[in-house]
Amino acid sequence: MGESFGIYTLGMDSAVLPHITSANIACGFHAGDPRVMNRSIHSALAHGVGVGAHPGFPDLMGFGRRIMDCSPQEIKAFMMVQIGAISAFCRTHGVALQHVKPHGSLYNMALASESIARSIVEAIAHTDRNLILMTLAGKQGDDLVRIAEDAGLRIALEAFPDRTYTPEGALVPRSNPQSVVRNPQEAAERAVRMVLEHRVIALDGSSVDLEAHTLCIHGDTPAALDFIRAIRKALKSHDVHILPLARMFFG
Amino acid sequence: MGESFGIYTLGMDSAVLPHITSANIACGFHAGDPRVMNRSIHSALAHGVGVGAHPGFPDLMGFGRRIMDCSPQEIKAFMMVQIGAISAFCRTHGVALQHVKPHGSLYNMALASESIARSIVEAIAHTDRNLILMTLAGKQGDDLVRIAEDAGLRIALEAFPDRTYTPEGALVPRSNPQSVVRNPQEAAERAVRMVLEHRVIALDGSSVDLEAHTLCIHGDTPAALDFIRAIRKALKSHDVHILPLARMFFG
Amino acid sequence: MGESFGIYTLGMDSAVLPHITSANIACGFHAGDPRVMNRSIHSALAHGVGVGAHPGFPDLMGFGRRIMDCSPQEIKAFMMVQIGAISAFCRTHGVALQHVKPHGSLYNMALASESIARSIVEAIAHTDRNLILMTLAGKQGDDLVRIAEDAGLRIALEAFPDRTYTPEGALVPRSNPQSVVRNPQEAAERAVRMVLEHRVIALDGSSVDLEAHTLCIHGDTPAALDFIRAIRKALKSHDVHILPLARMFFG
Amino acid sequence: MGESFGIYTLGMDSAVLPHITSANIACGFHAGDPRVMNRSIHSALAHGVGVGAHPGFPDLMGFGRRIMDCSPQEIKAFMMVQIGAISAFCRTHGVALQHVKPHGSLYNMALASESIARSIVEAIAHTDRNLILMTLAGKQGDDLVRIAEDAGLRIALEAFPDRTYTPEGALVPRSNPQSVVRNPQEAAERAVRMVLEHRVIALDGSSVDLEAHTLCIHGDTPAALDFIRAIRKALKSHDVHILPLARMFFG
Repeated sequence: MGESFGIYTLGMDSAVLPHITSANIACGFHAGDPRVMNRSIHSALAHGVGVGAHPGFPDLMGFGRRIMDCSPQEIKAFMMVQIGAISAFCRTHGVALQHVKPHGSLYNMALASESIARSIVEAIAHTDRNLILMTLAGKQGDDLVRIAEDAGLRIALEAFPDRTYTPEGALVPRSNPQSVVRNPQEAAERAVRMVLEHRVIALDGSSVDLEAHTLCIHGDTPAALDFIRAIRKALKSHDVHILPLARMFFG
Repeated sequence: MGESFGIYTLGMDSAVLPHITSANIACGFHAGDPRVMNRSIHSALAHGVGVGAHPGFPDLMGFGRRIMDCSPQEIKAFMMVQIGAISAFCRTHGVALQHVKPHGSLYNMALASESIARSIVEAIAHTDRNLILMTLAGKQGDDLVRIAEDAGLRIALEAFPDRTYTPEGALVPRSNPQSVVRNPQEAAERAVRMVLEHRVIALDGSSVDLEAHTLCIHGDTPAALDFIRAIRKALKSHDVHILPLARMFFG
Repeated sequence: MGESFGIYTLGMDSAVLPHITSANIACGFHAGDPRVMNRSIHSALAHGVGVGAHPGFPDLMGFGRRIMDCSPQEIKAFMMVQIGAISAFCRTHGVALQHVKPHGSLYNMALASESIARSIVEAIAHTDRNLILMTLAGKQGDDLVRIAEDAGLRIALEAFPDRTYTPEGALVPRSNPQSVVRNPQEAAERAVRMVLEHRVIALDGSSVDLEAHTLCIHGDTPAALDFIRAIRKALKSHDVHILPLARMFFG
Repeated sequence: MGESFGIYTLGMDSAVLPHITSANIACGFHAGDPRVMNRSIHSALAHGVGVGAHPGFPDLMGFGRRIMDCSPQEIKAFMMVQIGAISAFCRTHGVALQHVKPHGSLYNMALASESIARSIVEAIAHTDRNLILMTLAGKQGDDLVRIAEDAGLRIALEAFPDRTYTPEGALVPRSNPQSVVRNPQEAAERAVRMVLEHRVIALDGSSVDLEAHTLCIHGDTPAALDFIRAIRKALKSHDVHILPLARMFFG
């Protein structure tokens, strides 16, 4: 969320907000500008949605999706500037920043490189030890999770009901035409299995264990709303309570 | 301070740091980048120097010195992003941000426009009510001071021993060739008068009342060090204790 | 046109292109990025539309609409970089850049300040004396036109069928609720009067002389297309030939 | 050259200019701003120095030295914007842009990737077929040279008298402490051998063939001037005429 910039509008933030419990808000590096950040946090809090920082690379033109070979020291500093900026807006509303989820290339690089994972974890832990790191449920996130746990951070594992998984519990890459679930009802069923049975059916039909605390739906397509509605309905029909992360952790 | 950017170096931060008690650190908008911010705050704290945010306009090419007709809402958001970023770095060192001093055009516009003054004060007060606003001693700063006091902010009035003043207590504009004091010894005498007698001799020889809590020397010229040394020596010889702002206010 | 940036889309370029004869293309300062510029020029030329540079201030966040008090030397250099960039893309298609129309604040400042007008004219004339300067028909454009003519530039005067005019021939400011013509048919009638009778009916009902070579419709609203269609139809029904500027000037 | 930006100064352009025949001028992406570009080209031409574009990645913070995984289409567009901008300034002085040398990471990526090499060659050839591509003499540049020759571009091979070479004719990487020649006199001898004997003595003492049309000395260290002087003196004592590239090619 909050990925608009200046005159440019991106996403359907106001349509999606009533249906979610935690939002990842761009911090002005890969997207977002100071006024957009202010407005997004204001809206999120007005809907009782937990606010997360969504820090990325300083590359508006590439939307933070291009690999940039920055040093771990640079990446740590990038993280701190962005977490700090979002935190300041949260403080004006008397609430604390809830979580941090790296964006785009920075997220991918954190999953692939231990030194970058360490930079990201340090930036979060040094700025505010109460912050929750949101990261990938399943095999790909294992190293980052271990580093974050060693640093004493709480972790929210994120699963994708609209994406398919390999038998090893990794996301099927987007280059594969079967990587995306196109039917909201099917995504809803997958969501229920993720939440109640802690597993997912992989592309080859096998069952894979998957522990998840939060379900992510990308908010940049009109269909997103159909997915969110179908998933919420299915979870409710199974008596699942959906809460912001901070309340999950603190009861 | 902290006005370097990427490969570009500006100022003589490491030479000046041992001689000052409070530093204004650029926040990445008019100057500074995340790594420079990190390094600058680290160095300042290592020297026991109080850290202030020096937020400016998002205009690296113009070094924040160009007027940009931004709305009060934009300016408030600019301030919050920059204060938040600096605060995050301070927190990793276990210290609090001490003060905020707007930079360049933003400073001038805050002195000239009540609505901009209000945006700046709100940004500071809403982010952290313990922050000190550093602003201009003398007539030009009166409106900003009043607005900040109404909002409950503490204020540090800043005087310039190396600049001349009008009989009304305003800074003589830089366009006037007599605006700058070029002799370190003369600046030191002016500093002593500012601190002990709360007044300054104006350009026409008249005496002007001037209450000041902090003395500013621009750190971007080699001569700056001579001025700082002469002023410190003169103040010490008059038994003046020089403290970071936070310790002045809290004893 | 060409005001998209990275992942952000702005305007309805592909819908509008078939209906116009000259396009003003953003040059990467207030909007547009290198890939967008390339694509926009390619599309414009594919539709036989004359390509103009639409240079603005280096302020993507403010979309070039904020006043920035840059010096005439800076503005001249801004213009040359942007004209040069667009020209390079034109050259790859074997065509010449047709015209230059300053954007947003830069346009307004060129109309209000003689020194800025001079910078803009010099930048155009020094880069390529065959370029046409597109500027405002009516009183507000008089100074800029005179300076451009003195420099030997050809000028295309631009009128706005969807805007109202004062009895002095100036545009009614947007702050006035009657500044905009909301009915496509009315705009079409105004267009015909502008083209065939060289005049416009001012807000007070008086008739004002107005020489115009080109009619401008802002392309950023869905209604724009209705206006363009209505105006083209009305002009055609009066046997007006609509040509790109370059062909008007050279026959 | 021309790598200053806004208030930031980099390099010793005015000291170096009298001693060189061709200059690579930053184009505003990795360094340089419009006013700096204007000034640099003006100075270069005042000294009779041939002007080359030195286009890089849009990454001022990283000085264009960070790898950015941009697509060939993006890179082509980056090149064209930058070549076009420099060309516009040249045109105001009535001279043509002489050559293009990619900068930093973009240069390295052009040497390592055939698709990027092709983008760079196309950008140059499509903008102006008379431009000379300046690239690396020796093995590493072979692919880029072949692609450029196939496209009909003229090529200037560049050798580094102050760098060491492998027995295969590649530059010894900077990570090797022996990669740099620290003695101006030794560099001068290497320069003479490069120019008169078309070879270089590799790190292992073997002789490697190396055809070079231009010798590059980095202008960002005070010692650069000593190297340039020593090399010029040595070449002159061997009756070598030093000319701008454009005059070498056209006689």
